[in-house]
Amino acid sequence: MKHSFKNDYSELAHPEILDALKTLGTEQFEGYGLDKYCAKAAEIIKAKLSAPDADIHFVSGGTMANAAVIGSILRPCEAVIAADTGHICVHETGAIELTGHKICTAQNTNGKLQVADIESILQAHSGEHMVKPRLVFISQSTEIGSIYSKSELTAISQFCRANNLYLYLDGARLGAAMTAKNNDLTYADVARLADAFYIGGTKNGAMFGEAIVICRDELKQDFRNNLKQRGALLAKGAAMGAQFAKLFENNLHDELAKHANAMAYKLAGEIENLGFEFLLPVETNQIFPIFSNETVAKLKDKFAFYEWVRLPNNTTAVRLVTSWATSENNVDAFLEYLKKTL
Amino acid sequence: MKHSFKNDYSELAHPEILDALKTLGTEQFEGYGLDKYCAKAAEIIKAKLSAPDADIHFVSGGTMANAAVIGSILRPCEAVIAADTGHICVHETGAIELTGHKICTAQNTNGKLQVADIESILQAHSGEHMVKPRLVFISQSTEIGSIYSKSELTAISQFCRANNLYLYLDGARLGAAMTAKNNDLTYADVARLADAFYIGGTKNGAMFGEAIVICRDELKQDFRNNLKQRGALLAKGAAMGAQFAKLFENNLHDELAKHANAMAYKLAGEIENLGFEFLLPVETNQIFPIFSNETVAKLKDKFAFYEWVRLPNNTTAVRLVTSWATSENNVDAFLEYLKKTL
Amino acid sequence: MKHSFKNDYSELAHPEILDALKTLGTEQFEGYGLDKYCAKAAEIIKAKLSAPDADIHFVSGGTMANAAVIGSILRPCEAVIAADTGHICVHETGAIELTGHKICTAQNTNGKLQVADIESILQAHSGEHMVKPRLVFISQSTEIGSIYSKSELTAISQFCRANNLYLYLDGARLGAAMTAKNNDLTYADVARLADAFYIGGTKNGAMFGEAIVICRDELKQDFRNNLKQRGALLAKGAAMGAQFAKLFENNLHDELAKHANAMAYKLAGEIENLGFEFLLPVETNQIFPIFSNETVAKLKDKFAFYEWVRLPNNTTAVRLVTSWATSENNVDAFLEYLKKTL
Amino acid sequence: MKHSFKNDYSELAHPEILDALKTLGTEQFEGYGLDKYCAKAAEIIKAKLSAPDADIHFVSGGTMANAAVIGSILRPCEAVIAADTGHICVHETGAIELTGHKICTAQNTNGKLQVADIESILQAHSGEHMVKPRLVFISQSTEIGSIYSKSELTAISQFCRANNLYLYLDGARLGAAMTAKNNDLTYADVARLADAFYIGGTKNGAMFGEAIVICRDELKQDFRNNLKQRGALLAKGAAMGAQFAKLFENNLHDELAKHANAMAYKLAGEIENLGFEFLLPVETNQIFPIFSNETVAKLKDKFAFYEWVRLPNNTTAVRLVTSWATSENNVDAFLEYLKKTL
Repeated sequence: MKHSFKNDYSELAHPEILDALKTLGTEQFEGYGLDKYCAKAAEIIKAKLSAPDADIHFVSGGTMANAAVIGSILRPCEAVIAADTGHICVHETGAIELTGHKICTAQNTNGKLQVADIESILQAHSGEHMVKPRLVFISQSTEIGSIYSKSELTAISQFCRANNLYLYLDGARLGAAMTAKNNDLTYADVARLADAFYIGGTKNGAMFGEAIVICRDELKQDFRNNLKQRGALLAKGAAMGAQFAKLFENNLHDELAKHANAMAYKLAGEIENLGFEFLLPVETNQIFPIFSNETVAKLKDKFAFYEWVRLPNNTTAVRLVTSWATSENNVDAFLEYLKKTL
Repeated sequence: MKHSFKNDYSELAHPEILDALKTLGTEQFEGYGLDKYCAKAAEIIKAKLSAPDADIHFVSGGTMANAAVIGSILRPCEAVIAADTGHICVHETGAIELTGHKICTAQNTNGKLQVADIESILQAHSGEHMVKPRLVFISQSTEIGSIYSKSELTAISQFCRANNLYLYLDGARLGAAMTAKNNDLTYADVARLADAFYIGGTKNGAMFGEAIVICRDELKQDFRNNLKQRGALLAKGAAMGAQFAKLFENNLHDELAKHANAMAYKLAGEIENLGFEFLLPVETNQIFPIFSNETVAKLKDKFAFYEWVRLPNNTTAVRLVTSWATSENNVDAFLEYLKKTL
Repeated sequence: MKHSFKNDYSELAHPEILDALKTLGTEQFEGYGLDKYCAKAAEIIKAKLSAPDADIHFVSGGTMANAAVIGSILRPCEAVIAADTGHICVHETGAIELTGHKICTAQNTNGKLQVADIESILQAHSGEHMVKPRLVFISQSTEIGSIYSKSELTAISQFCRANNLYLYLDGARLGAAMTAKNNDLTYADVARLADAFYIGGTKNGAMFGEAIVICRDELKQDFRNNLKQRGALLAKGAAMGAQFAKLFENNLHDELAKHANAMAYKLAGEIENLGFEFLLPVETNQIFPIFSNETVAKLKDKFAFYEWVRLPNNTTAVRLVTSWATSENNVDAFLEYLKKTL
Repeated sequence: MKHSFKNDYSELAHPEILDALKTLGTEQFEGYGLDKYCAKAAEIIKAKLSAPDADIHFVSGGTMANAAVIGSILRPCEAVIAADTGHICVHETGAIELTGHKICTAQNTNGKLQVADIESILQAHSGEHMVKPRLVFISQSTEIGSIYSKSELTAISQFCRANNLYLYLDGARLGAAMTAKNNDLTYADVARLADAFYIGGTKNGAMFGEAIVICRDELKQDFRNNLKQRGALLAKGAAMGAQFAKLFENNLHDELAKHANAMAYKLAGEIENLGFEFLLPVETNQIFPIFSNETVAKLKDKFAFYEWVRLPNNTTAVRLVTSWATSENNVDAFLEYLKKTL
């Protein structure tokens, strides 16, 4: 089978995660996330975030996390502001609209939303015949691998607080962002600047599970009821608690993400050395080199990846995603084969 | 820690299930349930059901399965018919109503719905100012452990087909029903008589996962889109595929359920021998013996279980649930302690 | 054509209402209820209610009023408590469920909900797996013509406030209640005891229109946005403002309702004198005399009305509804014809 | 008070409409649109449309019509395609999203959607992680006064039918379109090319009311239940039936629209003669002349209208809307005053 660089959730789980699950054995625990594993994981995560008062909830996937948080926060006529590349805008089959809420989109800047975009959407919405933008949705890292700097996130957070907007951060790949070479944010910054966010496990070595973090007190009420109502409260929540406890107790979470980034950087560096250009700057574990269509065709014989966008002069930008499970062997094999195609 | 008879999802997963997951190792697979494990599990299940044309989908829990199926089938003004003990009526925090649909409830008969109940709800609903009942919801085994016989299920199915109603069966504990001492239904019967149902993994040895079975062609369209929209499509769907393949390839599913029932029957038989009465007939892995309040208090020192309902003469019916993980030791310890309290 | 006693909305509008509309002529006004007629009507109504701080909104019908208010007040997992005869439970085609909320029903007592019913529903709902009852729905007069006394309404209101429940009153026939012979409530009482309610125009002489009254400050925010979002904000809202200004400026509202009641009382009194019994006490403009099936058949030759319920001994309780438009001639004709049938 | 050119719903109703309502007097009729007036109006409209099999329903406003039709047609994961100027995209407070459906927007071309836009949205949506575009929404005349020609509407309709898309037309100002100087469509064309649409009464002389026309059989089922569930079924539906019967029985509908257009053409012609330019071509009863900001300021002393968009060189495009109620005196007064300002 061809090695796949299509995404970062192609392998089941990191061995330590599987072992952690196995140690639960036939021990009995409380259902629906009220067990000691979830409690422990929550404590470690809150310590990591320097956010002792946050509420932590575990759900099985990112679309669920987004829909549950946004559906719980917003009142009927309120809306979301997001970049047009936002995951909720495109790849969640209208999950947010199913909760009854419109998403007001702004054209992205390298996958990111800017204060000016939010401001301009606010200005365009007034009166009773329009929705009321109430929540800003951003992703860190973004859907195309870029990251918000501390000054960018601070500016957005301040603008939101000054304008009665909630700031929600989709952290499906938060690990990749936090361990990126140019990152200047701490976990405590994220918890301080966002009103709610989630830390992705699925794309960072867990078998499944995302940790929703609710920072703002007024958003905490009845959230578990909301989860249950959306089918998001897992009977054996302990399975997620155990995974997140393992991820965060010895820094495994960051190490796995760092590895994914390192593999991407190596791939990108060598590809650049070979004289190729990139569609977007290399920031985290998604890279977008530009190859001739002929090269792409050859690469596809041996590797799986997405062709991202056709470009002029018979070239194509492809997306290569690395993960905790990408080995240096995989990277070297790709590079070697690439050289042969030249 | 006290041994718990509170429910059948207190332990993580059967060892063979955990091993099955472990064998996936770091192998790469397609995301979102398009992998070979899900494909294999679907094939085995369809063979077991003698339903080669059924569609099989895996989701992480029962509330999600119920909301996804019902939300997908019904048009805006259509409603569900269910017994008042139906899981969707009480313990799912209004998940069905969140999809916009009313549930018309009938008083249960030993946890079951009868044709006469459905008929009487149909007769009470006519015209444009009322909802249109369109789907009948039943559970097998029911929320209180009873089971529909072949003749009962056939009668309901025939009535539904004659009256343009869909029949949906919540099989969170389908294994317990199919292996009950008095069961006269085959899996093929269930697939033939219901339009859609799900086979519960969570309560029968899986770490998580329910297998939704859609039998009727007209209900199949766009169901995966519906799952994605509800946050129910797991990125690593293979984790559920691997579990269900294991559960069904060597009959593990039925063996685990049979064991749970056997433990319940042993408990019940001995309790009866000690002269106690039961609130409800013993049919599957939930039993409801009646003890004096004094006995209940003593039992609670050593065991965990739910007090179901207070009865006259200082007695209480309690609920004891056994599972694939209940050992004869657990049962014997309970019985021994019970005798001591007398 | 047979005279109809089927309901109180069979005639278009009282002549004074039509004249009031005509006087608007081709005058220009602001759209969407921001006109001087709505402002004037709101002022008069607030004075009538001794509720200077209430917000008044006009919508075109009762189902819309109920769905807009309840859909605006409740958060996702919250539910309504109502008597099983409540209009929202039966005759609104699931409009409340379409907003995503469950209705918890109690068996009615002469069409009414009692504090004990609310209490018992509250006690049955706890924890994260159940909806949270948050709003009590009552109708005044009820769907079967009965009325809450001052002590009954006070007890419900106090219980609601002590238990964090909102009290909402469907006043489709509030006029009939307020002018009933045994009524001891003032309009100010209603506005003081309920958190929100509506005053029905459609069933009391208006061409269309219900005046929603929001008493509690925290429920006022964004309500006009909510109305627009539900299609409830009429472009020519002035048409409702003009009607309600007319209804309330010279007490026309109460006079019309009083007349409807008087016609019902006359009908009921004479029917009783003829020796007939009634299914329910006569309180407002809906009466339920019991006739032999033979008599019913004859009456249906000349009059239109609903057969309410079949009773033993070949008798049937019928429903006769009177309105602002019912003349003494209509009543006399019915009574005369009834005597002939004997 | 200043004369307003802000919109075409500033006056209550045409005198003949008011008279038609008055003739209902105290006559009794069936409730909820089952009366003879609605039946008669439906017959006349179907004759006008050469669409004997269409279903006709009356609702009180355009947002309600749009939400009821779209909410009734679409299944959960299906979406709408609309121009970014579409009324549902901006000025209905998210009413469509409240029904759970996403709107995929294309940049408008003079207020219109083109086949290429629809095609490009279709191509961008595939797979289970995206919504499925299923209904195309257009307005005739559009929100900025332009109209689709017969060839344009035919092309869109053909594309929709070839691609399994429903075509829905918002006809809030259908009269203005059908009587526009350059219109080449017949009413029969509209009914033949669209799957559903509505004919606006509110903006063309009625007190309130829009006539929904459902042409395609498969969209007809349970529509009245859907209307009731959304609070759209008016108890005294006869009030809308009587208005639409009057509008369509002697061509009043077209005459009123023609008058509105004529007033717009006169205004536009004279303004052009004075040397002013226009932001958009003059097609129906909305015109967009460009004045200096100084002129705008002076005009606002005497007339009410919307400033549409600021332009370079201290100029502003304003929107002037004429209606059935705009008199030549109003037009002349405006022109005279405009000349004075020069």
